[in-house]
Amino acid sequence: MFKKSPLAPARFPALAPVAGVRVSGIAAGLKESGRPDLFLAEFAKGSTVAGVFTKSKCSSAPVDWCRSILKHGRIRGLVVNSGNANAFTGRAGDRTVEYTVAATAKRLGCRRNEVYIASTGVIGVPVSQDYIASKLPDVAKRLGKAKWADAAAAIMTTDTFPKAAMRKVKIGKADISIVGIAKGSGMIAPDMATMLSFVFTDAKIPAPVLQRLLKDAADRSFNSITVDSDTSTSDTLLLAATGQVRHQRVSSVGDSHLKDFREALRAVCIDLATQVVRDGEGAQKFVTIDVSGAESAAAARRIGLAVANSPLVKTAIAGGDPNWGRIVMAVGKAGEKADRDKLSIGMGGVPITVEGQLVEGYDESVTGKHMAGSEIEIALDVGVGRGKARVWTCDLTHGYIEINADYRT
Amino acid sequence: MFKKSPLAPARFPALAPVAGVRVSGIAAGLKESGRPDLFLAEFAKGSTVAGVFTKSKCSSAPVDWCRSILKHGRIRGLVVNSGNANAFTGRAGDRTVEYTVAATAKRLGCRRNEVYIASTGVIGVPVSQDYIASKLPDVAKRLGKAKWADAAAAIMTTDTFPKAAMRKVKIGKADISIVGIAKGSGMIAPDMATMLSFVFTDAKIPAPVLQRLLKDAADRSFNSITVDSDTSTSDTLLLAATGQVRHQRVSSVGDSHLKDFREALRAVCIDLATQVVRDGEGAQKFVTIDVSGAESAAAARRIGLAVANSPLVKTAIAGGDPNWGRIVMAVGKAGEKADRDKLSIGMGGVPITVEGQLVEGYDESVTGKHMAGSEIEIALDVGVGRGKARVWTCDLTHGYIEINADYRT
Repeated sequence: MFKKSPLAPARFPALAPVAGVRVSGIAAGLKESGRPDLFLAEFAKGSTVAGVFTKSKCSSAPVDWCRSILKHGRIRGLVVNSGNANAFTGRAGDRTVEYTVAATAKRLGCRRNEVYIASTGVIGVPVSQDYIASKLPDVAKRLGKAKWADAAAAIMTTDTFPKAAMRKVKIGKADISIVGIAKGSGMIAPDMATMLSFVFTDAKIPAPVLQRLLKDAADRSFNSITVDSDTSTSDTLLLAATGQVRHQRVSSVGDSHLKDFREALRAVCIDLATQVVRDGEGAQKFVTIDVSGAESAAAARRIGLAVANSPLVKTAIAGGDPNWGRIVMAVGKAGEKADRDKLSIGMGGVPITVEGQLVEGYDESVTGKHMAGSEIEIALDVGVGRGKARVWTCDLTHGYIEINADYRT
Repeated sequence: MFKKSPLAPARFPALAPVAGVRVSGIAAGLKESGRPDLFLAEFAKGSTVAGVFTKSKCSSAPVDWCRSILKHGRIRGLVVNSGNANAFTGRAGDRTVEYTVAATAKRLGCRRNEVYIASTGVIGVPVSQDYIASKLPDVAKRLGKAKWADAAAAIMTTDTFPKAAMRKVKIGKADISIVGIAKGSGMIAPDMATMLSFVFTDAKIPAPVLQRLLKDAADRSFNSITVDSDTSTSDTLLLAATGQVRHQRVSSVGDSHLKDFREALRAVCIDLATQVVRDGEGAQKFVTIDVSGAESAAAARRIGLAVANSPLVKTAIAGGDPNWGRIVMAVGKAGEKADRDKLSIGMGGVPITVEGQLVEGYDESVTGKHMAGSEIEIALDVGVGRGKARVWTCDLTHGYIEINADYRT
């Protein structure tokens, strides 16, 4: 549909299977283009699940469903379609979810509250209630034959490349895999985005622990990115643990043998989240913003996101302009404690202002060269505390306007 | 500099002098283009003043000064320069303000706390401390000879047309004038924008009453507009009352003989604020958003601004796309109480969804025709309460990106 993002990774990563997960992806006719649009995953008995969802007050029927069953903490099936978000579809949308859940539970021989649903695509157009259910036999047939790449492709919408990440890690002496896939390139903002991401591991972790691990990882990854400040009705991040590998027992998020797993899960989520930014609609530049010296980590994140969301900052970056004045503006509007006379700003490792004053002999040609590249680094120290955060965004270009001024019509 | 906005009013309004105000505008060399960039107003003895300023935590030196003297409630002089914002200029910026204030007080024979300063333009580049002071004789010479149009022109930056408005109104039986000028076209958002506006009246109103009148008018006008969600370091709205007309005594904001004045002041502020939107950077369409059925008026305003600030809504409008799904998304992200099954949306007076469902037989060609025009009306009813608000914005176009990707370099 759209040209591949210039910021896309060189290749799709090598991924291994995760014991206890079988995936499948097919073209079920929901996308007009005829591309893959239906993804099914089956999980071994005993698999646990954690989830983080959109904060939208107009969340989609699938999100409402997932939220309602999350307390059970078990997952056996996951059905994801692209092409239609089943959002703002009223009671009809709820019925589509009910039909899909019932058919999947029957097919996999599990309870309905073990079946998770996610949908992404056009908002406000109902899908006929049994349509996805009717395609289940086709997609189930390929379970175990399909690859992660098929799954990643089946959940794409305006994405220009499929997104996946993997880390190997140990819990005690046991080898654990974490594999994740994601989609999203517009309506991306905390908390969260038209962003779907599914992460799979063969570790055995109780659902309440899994939930805390996921929330922590989401805050440092998916909730620290923004493309356009818009929040989708459908954002869903799920983490499923199949428990197929025997390892030291996990009983609390503070278990010392969980430390590496926690780091690896964060790494997978950051890898996926930054791929979403790299596929930001119209993005030509990938921007990392490091904030320090804020009143708290949360304040640092809000300041970082105010900079990352500012249309004036993002258009300056698009133009290769080291316009630090607009960063001052964005810090000021974040609403967090700041002091214009203590603010330090740098780009590409070069200090521009230190404690509210332009650095003597500051040479804009050096920062200008950095800003002309495609990997942009902005650092700012607010000077009022010790809070730190890193957020990611992309520039705002003509491409964003082209994509969004005629996506639907 | 830039082509005149297609949404500009057909002509500059006819304006009458306001008794007790003398204005002047000249080119003082602060703008590289050599255009007018210095505005001076002198007020009769006894003039009172009210002010509303940016909420930025990195406010400019002039804003800090005005805020510090506002409690005195008196104004004799107002000095405004464009071309340089004197923001993020550290102690040097404070000194420039001090010099300018001292020179103006001396020239006008008034106290320093009766001299107000506003600056707009490039951020972070210091002006030499006596530069503006040194131009005071030149600009003072033209006091009483210049017209409102000269004043409006001298405060422009990226504006493509000068902005002014006037209303005649009665307090009791006395004829009162209200004249306002404004500038701003980018970094426009509540609360507030790189927006300067100065309103003048010959009424006699005590400063505390004036302040309440101005706050009320600002909330319904300048704080209900957005171009790009970015908040300037320099936003300033001042209302000066010269007291030159004899009328029934005003002692409280609730005085019944003040009702028409309050309405007229709101009307002047709305007129000026919507002119700022009509000059929004790159704007091709002027958008009015009416929100009803929210939990409160404040909730309605926040929902309206979430819609008005959404890049996805604004690009859809640019593309002439009646994409109501994105409005659902924006309502959801506003964080205010909403219910997807009660939400009603219409465009150009045509209902699209009623209580969470697409209207049967909805014909997109009708709303499509409305969206192809340049005056767009969006109405939404949240269905959860009785709160109402109206906000204004413009579309997000290639023009915005062109202007902002190379404004400074």
